[in-house]
Amino acid sequence: MPRWTFYSAPGTCALATHIALHEAGADFDLVKLDFGAGQQQSPEYLRVNPKGRVPALATEHGVLTETPALLSFVAQRFPAAKLAPLDDPFAFARMQELTSYLAATAHVAHAHKRRGARWADDPAAHESMRVKVPQTMTACAAYLEGQITGPWAMGNDYNVADGYLFTIGSWLDADGVDMAQFPKLTAYLTRVAARPAVQRALEDAR
Amino acid sequence: MPRWTFYSAPGTCALATHIALHEAGADFDLVKLDFGAGQQQSPEYLRVNPKGRVPALATEHGVLTETPALLSFVAQRFPAAKLAPLDDPFAFARMQELTSYLAATAHVAHAHKRRGARWADDPAAHESMRVKVPQTMTACAAYLEGQITGPWAMGNDYNVADGYLFTIGSWLDADGVDMAQFPKLTAYLTRVAARPAVQRALEDAR
Repeated sequence: MPRWTFYSAPGTCALATHIALHEAGADFDLVKLDFGAGQQQSPEYLRVNPKGRVPALATEHGVLTETPALLSFVAQRFPAAKLAPLDDPFAFARMQELTSYLAATAHVAHAHKRRGARWADDPAAHESMRVKVPQTMTACAAYLEGQITGPWAMGNDYNVADGYLFTIGSWLDADGVDMAQFPKLTAYLTRVAARPAVQRALEDAR
Repeated sequence: MPRWTFYSAPGTCALATHIALHEAGADFDLVKLDFGAGQQQSPEYLRVNPKGRVPALATEHGVLTETPALLSFVAQRFPAAKLAPLDDPFAFARMQELTSYLAATAHVAHAHKRRGARWADDPAAHESMRVKVPQTMTACAAYLEGQITGPWAMGNDYNVADGYLFTIGSWLDADGVDMAQFPKLTAYLTRVAARPAVQRALEDAR
């Protein structure tokens, strides 16, 4: 298996793919970008990923981006690690329903806290977006609370979506969500945090 | 094969899944919701899809939502239709990289035109979001222009991502994008529009 290079930055959604890589036992080089210094917009990094975001995974076939795509890719490339229900199209779709929601709804809602400049130029609009984040993320937390059907999101089998739900779930408290309202989600986040692959990804990202 | 029920609404991203179902030759009942009348928030529909959005697909195993998940599901359930590179994890990830981008970046940018109330309460903020849409969607169009590598997005083989790129690509002109800047994308949209499954989905949605 060729060695991959994984591009990440602390505190970002790249943690989800980072966890998946460790769960899979993948061999990879880690490149940590300093977002504070704007490294994601450096000419060097834009040659790797013209989107100027993380995560990005340089593979033997080319560079892949977008968390839901990366998570399924890692699961498919390491089938022995059993990180997704690869032989059951409905269960696989259920898993992807969760990763799509996390990417297109929950992460997007969170991004309105500090990334309002993506969608409006007026500082007053950014502030208006920022103050609504506790409400939108509470709605996301309520939805996610209902998605946890066992020890892991999809019941008894851990899959790559769990590392992603953990990543975004870890942002909820700082986003102004009262986690006491969501006991299942709170216990779940503690359970995922205890996995060795998650600990290792968190340590790498420091 | 059990008969599915597909929930859609004219002018929405549900068109992408609708196209995929016709490309697959799936047998399904179509339920068209009237968004103008707020049917997506009716108690009846919220029992089908508590998110109050489209698309939703009621299958023999349960209801599925989220376009990227649905597209891969249709492709996997109808392998003979060859609607995705199912035997090549990297190519499948490349396809999903595009569907994830369309869901989490392009559709989200578009939604700031009329759905600003999702992310801010202040009408002035909604207006500030609305006026930036031509700029954000032009950036999306530029990215997408670079993604088209053949007659179809991924070269010589049409896949479910093409129906999704067509769906969102069809919004660009009304979103204030000068399509003359994007000749590859313009020609591509005409090519996808000519497919019988696309014509049929557009006619169904009327």
